[in-house]
Amino acid sequence: MTPTRTENLARWCTALTYDDLPEPVIQRTKSLFVDWVGCAIAGRHHPAIAAIVAFSKQMGPASGKCEVVDAGVGTSSAAFAALVNGAASHVVEQDDLHNSSIVHPATVVFPAALAVAQEKGATGKEFITACVVGYEVACRTGEYLGKTHYQNFHSTATAGTLGAAAAAAKLLNLDTDKMLSALGTAGTQAAGLWQFLLDATHSKQVHTGKACFDGIFAAYTAQSNLLGPRDVLEGKRGLGAVLVPSAPGAAPTIPTAIDARLGQKYSVLESSFKWHASCRHTHPSVDALLKIVEKHDIQMADIESVVARMYQAGIDVLSMSEQAETVHQSKFSMGFVLGVAAKYRRASINDFTEEALRDGEIREFQPRVRMVLDERIDGRFPEEWTGCVTVTTKDGNSYTEDVEVVKGDPGDTLSWSELESKMATLAHYAGITDLAPIKAVMKRVAGLESESNVLGFQF
Amino acid sequence: MTPTRTENLARWCTALTYDDLPEPVIQRTKSLFVDWVGCAIAGRHHPAIAAIVAFSKQMGPASGKCEVVDAGVGTSSAAFAALVNGAASHVVEQDDLHNSSIVHPATVVFPAALAVAQEKGATGKEFITACVVGYEVACRTGEYLGKTHYQNFHSTATAGTLGAAAAAAKLLNLDTDKMLSALGTAGTQAAGLWQFLLDATHSKQVHTGKACFDGIFAAYTAQSNLLGPRDVLEGKRGLGAVLVPSAPGAAPTIPTAIDARLGQKYSVLESSFKWHASCRHTHPSVDALLKIVEKHDIQMADIESVVARMYQAGIDVLSMSEQAETVHQSKFSMGFVLGVAAKYRRASINDFTEEALRDGEIREFQPRVRMVLDERIDGRFPEEWTGCVTVTTKDGNSYTEDVEVVKGDPGDTLSWSELESKMATLAHYAGITDLAPIKAVMKRVAGLESESNVLGFQF
Repeated sequence: MTPTRTENLARWCTALTYDDLPEPVIQRTKSLFVDWVGCAIAGRHHPAIAAIVAFSKQMGPASGKCEVVDAGVGTSSAAFAALVNGAASHVVEQDDLHNSSIVHPATVVFPAALAVAQEKGATGKEFITACVVGYEVACRTGEYLGKTHYQNFHSTATAGTLGAAAAAAKLLNLDTDKMLSALGTAGTQAAGLWQFLLDATHSKQVHTGKACFDGIFAAYTAQSNLLGPRDVLEGKRGLGAVLVPSAPGAAPTIPTAIDARLGQKYSVLESSFKWHASCRHTHPSVDALLKIVEKHDIQMADIESVVARMYQAGIDVLSMSEQAETVHQSKFSMGFVLGVAAKYRRASINDFTEEALRDGEIREFQPRVRMVLDERIDGRFPEEWTGCVTVTTKDGNSYTEDVEVVKGDPGDTLSWSELESKMATLAHYAGITDLAPIKAVMKRVAGLESESNVLGFQF
Repeated sequence: MTPTRTENLARWCTALTYDDLPEPVIQRTKSLFVDWVGCAIAGRHHPAIAAIVAFSKQMGPASGKCEVVDAGVGTSSAAFAALVNGAASHVVEQDDLHNSSIVHPATVVFPAALAVAQEKGATGKEFITACVVGYEVACRTGEYLGKTHYQNFHSTATAGTLGAAAAAAKLLNLDTDKMLSALGTAGTQAAGLWQFLLDATHSKQVHTGKACFDGIFAAYTAQSNLLGPRDVLEGKRGLGAVLVPSAPGAAPTIPTAIDARLGQKYSVLESSFKWHASCRHTHPSVDALLKIVEKHDIQMADIESVVARMYQAGIDVLSMSEQAETVHQSKFSMGFVLGVAAKYRRASINDFTEEALRDGEIREFQPRVRMVLDERIDGRFPEEWTGCVTVTTKDGNSYTEDVEVVKGDPGDTLSWSELESKMATLAHYAGITDLAPIKAVMKRVAGLESESNVLGFQF
């Protein structure tokens, strides 16, 4: 029988070794990991994280081999450490994004891989290899499910559960049959609705934390001989068939995404760092606006109106938080975000605060921004996240800029020193003033492939 | 603002007291609970349960206040005890069914309620009240999502997560706002694909165990101030909108199911006990076949062919396991099940075995059975699970029987002594020969409302 695409993917995952990895893949994986550590540090004070930590203390073991990045929380078993870290790293909207899959892979792959690597005593090389596998599965699953799935589901949660499972299964050295079971059990748990955006509730962190927990559940139970469906992606009642409704005009699934060019292209190299602290859908417009105001030295008060030309999926997500009643929603409101950018010529994590919500200038600017669907931009999405902004000034002039490559994208990636600067900002946001331990850990990650273990990521 | 239906449901859940419960509701809840205990005992030796137990030992605490029904496994925290018990009680296909919602409520509501009641030291009355609440939420959610949802999702898993959350939240005495959060966080985790039926893998037990775990997660995190979306049922991006694709001709959601006649009708009174050990979709046909062969004293060898007239959802599910390659699949194969019924004039748990899979008489009978869609029967489903069977004998005679009420249905419910007999069969299946402790527990459940705690359900 011809193997299914899912089998091809599983076989590649189990066969991959560290020595197969091209040098840029190794380097980028370490950069993405360091970026993730910063995000996990920054998210520690959110009420959703406090609730999830409380659950872990109530239901999990008192301590364990696995570190919660927030040192104050202590340690736990792999599933609970990953639950907390996965939730915490998705709080501040600074974690990475894989464009074509519309998945934030870091926040689901690294927590699962780190916890299981700590539980099993894995080396730096084994950890890096498992993360590459996790990225590949999360991103390819997201690409396969596509735009229509993303309209209905938070793809980071659904595809992320499979990515977390694959990374964990790789660290457990599961064979191809058990890797398939892990993917199957992950797939049948895949969930995550956008409903939380409508009332600014906390599901976003639940989704990423639970993707980690559920992925680890899938991998460990597969190791213990629990059978998962063997083709949870393309099967007749699998994710593609059930979680991608075939409404008229809807984008179809992309089966080739599952197994095309395995080992020839790597999802870690296609993932973007987030430079701005707002929803990634606002970034092309932020960059375009910044180009305009910097080039023509336009002040916030000079601006009459802004038109942001966009792809539909961005409009869909951002329309749910237009009013920006909470800090989190304010990062998902195009008007608010462009107000911040026009005022400060940046959109950094420390610009989205309770005070900013009461900033009259930004609030007055907010309704001057309008999002408009652009068919050309929409046709390129999600392979390319582009944008175009037109600013009309009060003196009657009009300026337009396209943005093809956003800062942090693979075409304009962050340098190690930019990552250091981002890390410092995130640590500062978390109230950490002594940066020495963070700098030491960054140095250690730079040589992670030589480390005999991956312990020591608590701050 | 007019409260949403979800708010009405949540408010009713938080307000309900034991004293509000009509006597038949209390009695039926105890009967359903005792029936569930038997199912949890019978499922203990399944490989899926062994794997889930291993996961609980690897990731959970070494012991806790909550009992796993299999005494050999010991105790754990509420989430893990419920995970294992929820999985175990859905192994042998003997747990109850709420017809109009197509949900098996016992296997998701009782494990969650029992574990949280043990954790909190709740009384028998508090436990019973929480179970009534859990049934109401699971069944009303299933009814709301309806037939089209069931085509795509294992409703026991999806609606069950909300039922488990509601029962747990009730035992935690959450107020209406937090009850809504618990339902919201449960809903955004709701998952469960039918893909496992196609290759006889183990997701069915994963679904029920994880529904319990995830429901408890939702309730405890809500208690700790994690906000869940407030209208996860009818919200624009909620369960009804996303998990019920509006394909042409598809059955719509049934919004009134969420909050109509709360406190006037009770889902526990509408739930059916399973008398036969096969998939519930086979039961109308089994009863009809038994009527025919008993009335006319027809032997298996006399039968030329059987036509089972059915509703579409039953054909959909049973078509996935027609070949009956495993014991579990054999309970989902109409040909196999009717073969067992024709041979033994029953379809008991001890009739579905590895030996039965190799039984030439049953295997030869299997292809003589044909399922046929009947529009009239389909139109009544899922409010009524009816069937009609025609047996044609080798001597050319033909006999037809309709079945309107299946044995175990609310209209023909099981007596306490029938429940005792079923319990004995289930215990025997699990290899338990000393029935004294089981009889003692049944006696205790009979007076559960007088008990100061709900400990002592280990065998």
